[in-house]
Amino acid sequence: QENAKIIDGKATAAAIRAELKAEVEAHVQSSGGPPPGLAVVLVGDRRDSATYVRMKKKACDEIGVSSFGFDFPEDVTQDTLLACVGELNSRPDVHGILVQLPLPKHIDEQSVLQAITPSKDVDGLHPANVAALCTGRTRAPGQAASWQLKDLDFHVPCTPQGCIELLDRYGVEISGKRAVVLGRSNIVGIPVSMLLMHRDATVTMTHSKTVDIASVVREADIVVCAAGRAEMVKADWIKPGAAVIDVGINSVDDATTKKGYRLVGDVDFKAAKEVAAKITPVPGGVGPMTIAMLLRNTVNGATRAAAAAAVAAAGGG
Amino acid sequence: QENAKIIDGKATAAAIRAELKAEVEAHVQSSGGPPPGLAVVLVGDRRDSATYVRMKKKACDEIGVSSFGFDFPEDVTQDTLLACVGELNSRPDVHGILVQLPLPKHIDEQSVLQAITPSKDVDGLHPANVAALCTGRTRAPGQAASWQLKDLDFHVPCTPQGCIELLDRYGVEISGKRAVVLGRSNIVGIPVSMLLMHRDATVTMTHSKTVDIASVVREADIVVCAAGRAEMVKADWIKPGAAVIDVGINSVDDATTKKGYRLVGDVDFKAAKEVAAKITPVPGGVGPMTIAMLLRNTVNGATRAAAAAAVAAAGGG
Ligand SMILES: NC(=O)C1=CN([C@@H]2O[C@H](COP(=O)(O)OP(=O)(O)OC[C@H]3O[C@@H](n4cnc5c(N)ncnc54)[C@H](OP(=O)(O)O)[C@@H]3O)[C@@H](O)[C@H]2O)C=CC1
Ligand SMILES: NC(=O)C1=CN([C@@H]2O[C@H](COP(=O)(O)OP(=O)(O)OC[C@H]3O[C@@H](n4cnc5c(N)ncnc54)[C@H](OP(=O)(O)O)[C@@H]3O)[C@@H](O)[C@H]2O)C=CC1
Repeated sequence: QENAKIIDGKATAAAIRAELKAEVEAHVQSSGGPPPGLAVVLVGDRRDSATYVRMKKKACDEIGVSSFGFDFPEDVTQDTLLACVGELNSRPDVHGILVQLPLPKHIDEQSVLQAITPSKDVDGLHPANVAALCTGRTRAPGQAASWQLKDLDFHVPCTPQGCIELLDRYGVEISGKRAVVLGRSNIVGIPVSMLLMHRDATVTMTHSKTVDIASVVREADIVVCAAGRAEMVKADWIKPGAAVIDVGINSVDDATTKKGYRLVGDVDFKAAKEVAAKITPVPGGVGPMTIAMLLRNTVNGATRAAAAAAVAAAGGG
Repeated sequence: QENAKIIDGKATAAAIRAELKAEVEAHVQSSGGPPPGLAVVLVGDRRDSATYVRMKKKACDEIGVSSFGFDFPEDVTQDTLLACVGELNSRPDVHGILVQLPLPKHIDEQSVLQAITPSKDVDGLHPANVAALCTGRTRAPGQAASWQLKDLDFHVPCTPQGCIELLDRYGVEISGKRAVVLGRSNIVGIPVSMLLMHRDATVTMTHSKTVDIASVVREADIVVCAAGRAEMVKADWIKPGAAVIDVGINSVDDATTKKGYRLVGDVDFKAAKEVAAKITPVPGGVGPMTIAMLLRNTVNGATRAAAAAAVAAAGGG
């Protein structure tokens, strides 16, 4: 993979799932406990949310992680949801709790997310996990720039984690490089900026108020695009030899397709791939990595819980 | 002040203290409650820590904020400290709790800081406050880039807040500008990067692993230096017309002074002031602002507590 130009997220995600499957088997054998378990809470009947939940459960099955579905009607009360989360927090066979967003308007999303115990917050959105990522915890002495995502002791949001994993597996050096991130959302832009910074890149955070963004992007050895704007990043924005990670998923009208639309990224892929040294396609780039990282977080949660239980059993904790 | 070249932190801090003094008087009158109160916890007998604590208490006195000192010997147990914090958390006359750092090695600093209830965490180091700063909370709809530090509903660390306040009071536009921050510590570099980004600057975070930092700094309309390296930023690193905020406090040997040393910033001030449009001196720049912002956080804590109490009394909370 290190020499390939096109960063194949689909193949990389499959490889990671295979690694995780082996890890799960080893974990079940050594711990003697239940397999890692992911609880997925779904409210209402949005079709897109139902699809995502189905994909997540299927991925769990594939690698031997138990998945537990908790489906609620659109008009569920906040108290009922909080009670569900509270119960999942204390279930020893549940190591990850995922509340599929968005929630209906009458529910306070933040309250529900904050009710999840941080060690089971596999989306990495609990304030305790956000704070861990936005302070120096990844740069603890001895870890420096050599830390591995899988060794962190808190949950990092899945999509940003997938971006770094792709750079790592395709041999893109991060330390000392200039990285430019387009977008500053809580789920992609900010956390991926933090991860790149913790890996010792010099990171520039850009957004819709950035002036002359093309010339800012041109400074970058690594570009991460998460603006949600179809093909806004042109080939001449890319510094020759840069690595380009395209997080965007945008649908554009296309009468030549059966569905009448097709999905494109934030980057003009066809032209940009002639300039970049490495680039992710859309679809098949970052997209498949997100679920793989969700599985990783769940498996990490299970192994950390088992380690903590072993310490407690030995009277050490 | 808007047209001045030298950003006078001492005068600005004095002006802010005068504003806060009036605010405190109004608060006491309207709430009928006790004045805002700051509890300062000091462990051991480090001379520098004792000096800082004394300065903070004096500043409280000056504006009518009550200060409560809690001094413990070097060998205090963690449990005793936690019990003290727990009691302060529930005291209605205490609105800010400051634990002077560093703590002795046998105490787990993070545990003590996390024990402070977030609404009284006037240093802004509790994970709940860190997470609030590192997510979009300052960019809530309707606030956009026009938010004022004094209106935020969580505590922002004092020194970064002081940096923004100086830019604001000296008429430096932030939105749409390029900002470069030197240093990525939890108390200065990261939070000031977040504040600049929330104010719609395009922010580049740099650190000791940044390659060719001079040319990165040269891109900046606003430079914030918090690397702790005496006069490392040279005049030719500064883009003509840039605003320069120097957070660094470094002591360098100087046989011509009585003490044998003098304090300098991270910037070669004498030369840089010929290039910059606005620049803070050291001392007398950011330094005095830090305590002023601590007072601001304490007063904010008191007015928010009074507002919450009023809502509760009206049966609304
Ligand atoms: N592959 C995957 O698994 C995932 C893909 N995505 C995709 O990634 C994209 C981003 O998602 P998300 O972060 O949730 O989106 P948000 O809408 O929450 O954030 C978009 C960000 O992009 C910025 N932005 C908008 N327009 C521009 C512009 N013209 N130039 C520069 N910046 C701009 C916005 O700036 P401002 O803050 O100023 O408004 C904002 O910070 C979407 O296409 C989404 O579908 C998201 C999550 C997972
Ligand atoms: N005015 C005031 O009230 C305050 C002043 N200060 C002063 O501000 C300065 C910074 O304080 P603090 O943030 O606590 O310091 P830290 O030592 O915690 O952090 C210093 C940061 O600067 C970076 N750095 C070090 N050398 C260089 C270099 N050559 N080029 C670029 N970056 C570099 C480090 O990078 P890396 O992460 O790679 O090691 C690190 O991120 C100090 O001088 C301190 O005295 C601090 C607080 C309050």
